[in-house]
Amino acid sequence: MRTKPLSGFPEFLPAGRIAELAVLDTLRETFELHGFAPIETRAVETMDALTRKGEITKEVYTVRRLHAVEGEAPKDDLGLHFDLTVPFARYVQEFAGHLAFPFRRYQIQKVWRGERPQEGRYREFTQADIDIVGDNTLAAHHDVEVALVMLEAFERLHTRFGLPPVVMHVNNRKLAEGFYRGLGVEDHLAVLQRVDKLDKIGPDAVAKLLVDDLGISPEAAAKCLELATIQTADTSFVEQVRALGVENPLLDEGLAALAEVVDAAAKAVPGRLVADLKIARGLDYYTGTVYETELTGFESLGSICSGGRYDSLATDGKRTWPGVGISIGVSRILAPLIGKGEFVASRSVPTCVLVAVDAEDTRVASNDVAARLRARGIPTEVAPKADKYGKQIRYADRRGIPFVWFGDTVKDIRTGDQSPADPDTWTPPAEDLTPSIARG
Amino acid sequence: MRTKPLSGFPEFLPAGRIAELAVLDTLRETFELHGFAPIETRAVETMDALTRKGEITKEVYTVRRLHAVEGEAPKDDLGLHFDLTVPFARYVQEFAGHLAFPFRRYQIQKVWRGERPQEGRYREFTQADIDIVGDNTLAAHHDVEVALVMLEAFERLHTRFGLPPVVMHVNNRKLAEGFYRGLGVEDHLAVLQRVDKLDKIGPDAVAKLLVDDLGISPEAAAKCLELATIQTADTSFVEQVRALGVENPLLDEGLAALAEVVDAAAKAVPGRLVADLKIARGLDYYTGTVYETELTGFESLGSICSGGRYDSLATDGKRTWPGVGISIGVSRILAPLIGKGEFVASRSVPTCVLVAVDAEDTRVASNDVAARLRARGIPTEVAPKADKYGKQIRYADRRGIPFVWFGDTVKDIRTGDQSPADPDTWTPPAEDLTPSIARG
Repeated sequence: MRTKPLSGFPEFLPAGRIAELAVLDTLRETFELHGFAPIETRAVETMDALTRKGEITKEVYTVRRLHAVEGEAPKDDLGLHFDLTVPFARYVQEFAGHLAFPFRRYQIQKVWRGERPQEGRYREFTQADIDIVGDNTLAAHHDVEVALVMLEAFERLHTRFGLPPVVMHVNNRKLAEGFYRGLGVEDHLAVLQRVDKLDKIGPDAVAKLLVDDLGISPEAAAKCLELATIQTADTSFVEQVRALGVENPLLDEGLAALAEVVDAAAKAVPGRLVADLKIARGLDYYTGTVYETELTGFESLGSICSGGRYDSLATDGKRTWPGVGISIGVSRILAPLIGKGEFVASRSVPTCVLVAVDAEDTRVASNDVAARLRARGIPTEVAPKADKYGKQIRYADRRGIPFVWFGDTVKDIRTGDQSPADPDTWTPPAEDLTPSIARG
Repeated sequence: MRTKPLSGFPEFLPAGRIAELAVLDTLRETFELHGFAPIETRAVETMDALTRKGEITKEVYTVRRLHAVEGEAPKDDLGLHFDLTVPFARYVQEFAGHLAFPFRRYQIQKVWRGERPQEGRYREFTQADIDIVGDNTLAAHHDVEVALVMLEAFERLHTRFGLPPVVMHVNNRKLAEGFYRGLGVEDHLAVLQRVDKLDKIGPDAVAKLLVDDLGISPEAAAKCLELATIQTADTSFVEQVRALGVENPLLDEGLAALAEVVDAAAKAVPGRLVADLKIARGLDYYTGTVYETELTGFESLGSICSGGRYDSLATDGKRTWPGVGISIGVSRILAPLIGKGEFVASRSVPTCVLVAVDAEDTRVASNDVAARLRARGIPTEVAPKADKYGKQIRYADRRGIPFVWFGDTVKDIRTGDQSPADPDTWTPPAEDLTPSIARG
């Protein structure tokens, strides 16, 4: 059998997977500390559910029984989910009668996008999402909450593993809509679509589009651009917006909501969240707060953690479930770092102790030592072969296993220190019990 | 949007998912205690890799970009993996230069089978596999080891969560092959294929097949059947086989290898492993020890944990990687129990404490209490609305949250006990910190 990697489907060596698991464990720990319940949805959804939003259709992977391909009429009725929001919306509707609202869930799963692979784009990747959904209503303070939970998670990843710090950029769609309405422009989405191109085409070109396409006055267009350049780490953005002299009740609402998020974050995680009035995000989708997040020093990755408030995550015609949620692109952060060996575990196995084997007929004694160490939670292997001790040490060394147990002694193979030890009482230093994870 | 469940794709409510995660955590803990390294492989493999073993072809789900379906020439080049062995074999070969052998890995992932759904059959399910692979050689003691690791995992699931105990049935293909050869039958696989039907068609019909199809003497056929009925929880099977009067060196080898597994298991996990000389399993695949496992009281599920020794997990023509591995069908065990509500968590959220909110303008104070509890590892939510206290208690009660925090007091809502408490020192009873998992 010949094998070759599939472009866009990253896979890690064990030391990389150990590092990835440590990150996923930290996310789960954070989400559970905040009372988010875990769910897992199936990998497939009906094509009907997946293609509701026309623009992503081309990225869907269809799934079909091979047998069906050969014999039955083809029905493209299933596809792999391309995010965790569509499946969650379906899950909420399907199980609504069994869920308690507001319903807080986290979901850490693979998603798939059938796009042409390119640098930094994956066809299979892991996302970690939190969402809070209400039954018809959902209080505004949850918009603050989800941002703080994600920032707390990133703070843990930063302090525990040395992953880069983040800056979350937050805006509120009501703010922009109210501002444009205050300027007399009714089609606020048309303005937003054009302002959203600011980073790509620059302010002059955007101003031209606003004037030429939408018939907005050059003065009003200039104000739209001024609004988009406002970015503050505290609530001073409110004054800056006020100074533009536009008045509208929806603008007031947006300003107040955004100020609440910024204010809470400034207290809880100083320096990690900014009001950034150019953030648009998911034009047809979000209706209030929107979030994007940059990894400091890795801004070229784009937003690694995004989301927002939606008035209707799901609806069955009678009931509507509004929600707010944020999604971390775990693979987008980790795959480049792990792939380049910049973020891996200190060893390629969980093993803390290798118990040496003196001769094959005394393997049972080594197994017994290992069982006693494991009974106290110490990950332990027994040497696969009664080789010369040097070779057994090499087995440990190649895997990064720090300790080798010989008879009644234990040796730290990094320092060469050897000392008498009892498998019922000996305990490794806490930092050696499990692999340590750090940026290299 | 209308939704309906997809047959064969089980999904759980949060309390079920919490229970499933507790099981998966326990498996991972056991595997890591024994030094198995985690890997995760991509969900897709090339169809070439998946269809190598002709018989399962019809169960494969093909995966194709929707865009490709519409515009490009169809190429069925990718499919979802239907087990974790094919992907592991490919991974070993692809990354051999970066792995240290013997390589011990565990892998807990979803797999997919495109079969027509029926009771107890899933199209998407979770497997938990351990394998040990060597570079050209692999010592026999690993056959003992993988069985004991799996039995240790099941023992934890039994004592921690009340899942049913298991009995692992073990055989050795060399034993049967040597026995048949000792009877003068060269085509041992042909015999095995027929003996494998014993449970389905009964001994008389099998004897007739052996005599009619293979031209074996009625006496030899009777011995083949006698061999297949031998089942012992200790090494007494050796004497029972010897009493049949058949001699062959391969038989001796098989008897010794199986005796070693049975002997070790009888000491480590008494009563959980039996020698069962009718077990055939994966006819073209396994070459030595084979394992099947029944869940006591749920024998109708079939084997929930199976595997064996293979002389060649993978080969690139020059190198060959022999291995031994066992796979737990996690969904096969849990989906029926969780689906019927017989195995769920004590609450539907991780939350241990709900901090009540007196009025919306004091929410900040409640957030502060929650943060201090979380800082000490106590999963905590803040009430979503400053409702009357009765309603806030009901919020907790509906989710199974045991404690509600009011001002300077904490109330156990199950008993009604209320006492003064400080968020920097109060600690819940250990059994209430996380949801408890048990068979209901």
